[in-house]
Amino acid sequence: MTKKGYVVAVVGATGLVGQEMIKVLEERRFPVSRLVPVASKRSAGKKVRFRRKAWKVFPISLDVFKNVDIALFSAGAEISRKFVPEIAAKGTIVIDNTSAFRMEPGIPLVVPEVNGDRIQPHERIYANPNCSTAQLVLVLKPIHDAARIRRVVVSTYQSVSGAGREAVEELMKNTKAALAGKKFKPKEFTYPIAFNVIPHIDAFLPSGYTKEEMKMINETRKILGDRHIQVTATTVRVPVLIGHSESVNIETEKRITPADVRKLLSSMPTVKIVDEPSKNKYPTPLMAAGSDDTFVGRIRQDVSKPNGIELWIVSDNLRRGAATNAVLIAERVLLVHTPGY
Amino acid sequence: MTKKGYVVAVVGATGLVGQEMIKVLEERRFPVSRLVPVASKRSAGKKVRFRRKAWKVFPISLDVFKNVDIALFSAGAEISRKFVPEIAAKGTIVIDNTSAFRMEPGIPLVVPEVNGDRIQPHERIYANPNCSTAQLVLVLKPIHDAARIRRVVVSTYQSVSGAGREAVEELMKNTKAALAGKKFKPKEFTYPIAFNVIPHIDAFLPSGYTKEEMKMINETRKILGDRHIQVTATTVRVPVLIGHSESVNIETEKRITPADVRKLLSSMPTVKIVDEPSKNKYPTPLMAAGSDDTFVGRIRQDVSKPNGIELWIVSDNLRRGAATNAVLIAERVLLVHTPGY
Repeated sequence: MTKKGYVVAVVGATGLVGQEMIKVLEERRFPVSRLVPVASKRSAGKKVRFRRKAWKVFPISLDVFKNVDIALFSAGAEISRKFVPEIAAKGTIVIDNTSAFRMEPGIPLVVPEVNGDRIQPHERIYANPNCSTAQLVLVLKPIHDAARIRRVVVSTYQSVSGAGREAVEELMKNTKAALAGKKFKPKEFTYPIAFNVIPHIDAFLPSGYTKEEMKMINETRKILGDRHIQVTATTVRVPVLIGHSESVNIETEKRITPADVRKLLSSMPTVKIVDEPSKNKYPTPLMAAGSDDTFVGRIRQDVSKPNGIELWIVSDNLRRGAATNAVLIAERVLLVHTPGY
Repeated sequence: MTKKGYVVAVVGATGLVGQEMIKVLEERRFPVSRLVPVASKRSAGKKVRFRRKAWKVFPISLDVFKNVDIALFSAGAEISRKFVPEIAAKGTIVIDNTSAFRMEPGIPLVVPEVNGDRIQPHERIYANPNCSTAQLVLVLKPIHDAARIRRVVVSTYQSVSGAGREAVEELMKNTKAALAGKKFKPKEFTYPIAFNVIPHIDAFLPSGYTKEEMKMINETRKILGDRHIQVTATTVRVPVLIGHSESVNIETEKRITPADVRKLLSSMPTVKIVDEPSKNKYPTPLMAAGSDDTFVGRIRQDVSKPNGIELWIVSDNLRRGAATNAVLIAERVLLVHTPGY
């Protein structure tokens, strides 16, 4: 990989995350010599916009990855399981946004600002974490380095865009029906999501936790590289379009103050502190939508525990939690895999 | 108080909670001989419905409480501070839904199923807890009795009706504006609440906690009668009309299982377990609205702590968290203050 431009495939190119990936590639001027938008047969023939041009969408097959340098996958875990190992073996570097390989021991699960050192020339597959994990580890990392985190209790407020385009449309339709006083039969969610909250994301496990909750728990430990950190999560869908929020309780080994936390977080490049309660300044999903940053507020000493910190994290789940994280990995891949780039 | 019917005043009779109080008095066939609806001068002249009749609303003054046996107050802490002590001294029994007297040492703060024994013939003022506290203590009580609670970490998802009628109207207007792609300038909330979540309820304190959060913390300890229980809370407004939800992490001294918790909770009269994940059964605010019950689901063993339990509580904040709790206190007042009733 010593070229000036790269052939980049985006798999799931017509989906919410795929569209955002293409947007972020353009915004960040990623050196794309040719874009290969890939989607299911259903979307074949469609076109996507990139650099003011319309690019034809290809139906997925092994053939479309011929000569592709980097492929960003976001078309579901099944598609990734089916195609990623083979195309990676043929030399394409894959950044996979699905849950397919995240917990596979040999595969780096990466949030570049946190564990970018896991990007190494010999790797071919990188996993992008779950959206709600990415924003969490960005905040936990500097705190863990300074004070060693013992336990994290997190409750999420996750937007419907995390469930895909149909879910966004359902929230809009459901809201209109509710305002008109009409009944609404949900398809994407188990109950109406308009003017409601649903404590259920992804499938339930025998333990009573959901897969989404276990992703947050397991991925956090893997990315921070510490199996001793205890994590528990309750993940909840709220009627928000874009932006996941998290109420986070952190217990550390070494006592730290909110002032320490502010100082530590200000060292993280993409973390922004919005925390002036007296001026009603704290993050909300509406303000975070469209940004690549992770916003933190409500930082305070936990009154229930000497070594406890409470805080509130918000970020754009399609960008920071998915598309931007994948492109940040790709940028680092160029640096590491391409000496002299 | 040995009469068959009682003169009952409802202060704040035109507000959301006042209206619900009048509805609950009627539904539960509370022995009202005369209803005295009271409101601000602004609402004077209005009428309220009770038992198929229209009752004139009186502007508030000391005079209107003459001959009133029981007064339910829900017109803000200032009004309560101004009127309650004096009318109670004259013999009216007051059940106050505001924060005015909740933490006053001599005044019982009551959720009848939890600490109904605090209702005693010599008392004249009873405080009704904050809406988000009432549903929480109903669930904590049997667990505390059986396994001694050490610490509770709670994050809330609170509906706009907790902020009053104008807040409900603002959510509707804001939602319509958002659907039409129009800008919206919020008045009741600091930021637009439609398709957003706001981690700010009531005023901020120097500690970084809000008053709402401190109410949950302090009131929980007072009602459970145990200053050793450690509690921390993050209270968040969500675009829901009625029904507060709570993600609750409980640490106990004695280890208990989810099966134990289910058994313990089934002993609480107004607590209903809705917890069959395999059938997508768990509580949501939409299902809880209109009910007097407190619904609990997502009961599971905390993977991050040996003696931890995670669960999810939902109830109608206007009813269980306010009107119904006040009327339940009033019913018990009749029993205790009126031998032979």
